[in-house]
Amino acid sequence: MELYLIRHGIAEEQTSSIKDEERSLTKEGRQKTEKVAQRLQKLGLQFDLIVTSPLVRARQTAEILIAAGLSSQLEESAHLTPDGDISSWLIDWLKPKNYSPNTQLALVGHEPCLSNWAEILLWGEAKGSFVLKKAGMIGVKLPETGSPVGHSQMFWLTPPKYLL
Amino acid sequence: MELYLIRHGIAEEQTSSIKDEERSLTKEGRQKTEKVAQRLQKLGLQFDLIVTSPLVRARQTAEILIAAGLSSQLEESAHLTPDGDISSWLIDWLKPKNYSPNTQLALVGHEPCLSNWAEILLWGEAKGSFVLKKAGMIGVKLPETGSPVGHSQMFWLTPPKYLL
Repeated sequence: MELYLIRHGIAEEQTSSIKDEERSLTKEGRQKTEKVAQRLQKLGLQFDLIVTSPLVRARQTAEILIAAGLSSQLEESAHLTPDGDISSWLIDWLKPKNYSPNTQLALVGHEPCLSNWAEILLWGEAKGSFVLKKAGMIGVKLPETGSPVGHSQMFWLTPPKYLL
Repeated sequence: MELYLIRHGIAEEQTSSIKDEERSLTKEGRQKTEKVAQRLQKLGLQFDLIVTSPLVRARQTAEILIAAGLSSQLEESAHLTPDGDISSWLIDWLKPKNYSPNTQLALVGHEPCLSNWAEILLWGEAKGSFVLKKAGMIGVKLPETGSPVGHSQMFWLTPPKYLL
């Protein structure tokens, strides 16, 4: 199974009138994310399911991926918010009952949660070794049997600028 | 400083009449590597120096990178052969006297040496967590001060298929 960890695009700054969870993608963030999504589609990527953080900037990013034809299935999960418990949720989700060896799952969320999770899957712990830019992505291959924690392999890490 | 670890392209098989160190890139390997090099050049990559393993398949890969305009400086180092001691050589090379914060160094070599080295730079030890395909590359950012071992960050890991 392949897991794609995708960070939301560039979003407007938080202000006294805009709560963090309501921050939208900026015009530049939307355009760049659309270009990334189109490139991913041309490269042949296809996700069985996209699960997104419910925060507006992540939800909008996921909707751009859907509009580009990268998946037809979109779900929200509060576990993917910056304060969410991605850890136990992902471990539970990654039990074999939930996926086949060919499943391609994309998660749209926030830093440092996503790159920390890539490290945990590879190494069992996180120490901030990956640079995941906004609208960038990480691709991780999970083992066919056994726990993915500390036993997965990374095959892709890219900033958006190399996808434009 | 940024370090780019580049694996040689697809090479002919070893036979009784072709020694391992004399294996050349196949026609497919040469064409794919040329496309990757052209894409890297379009993406704005520019290396101050390319150091290559002296084995034919690596040397040919490095020459394709030079021909695409990615660098004007090419050196060979026996430390980059599959049996070479990349470890102590790289640690010595990465002393601040050898580079400025803006140096972009590319190493062309073999697996599992290259991806093991990326892991050592990030985490201090190697356990085979990265998939580095032939003509694929890894980009690592080194800290401005102190030892790079266990203190570097990875910003790029790509198979060639996402650069074609």
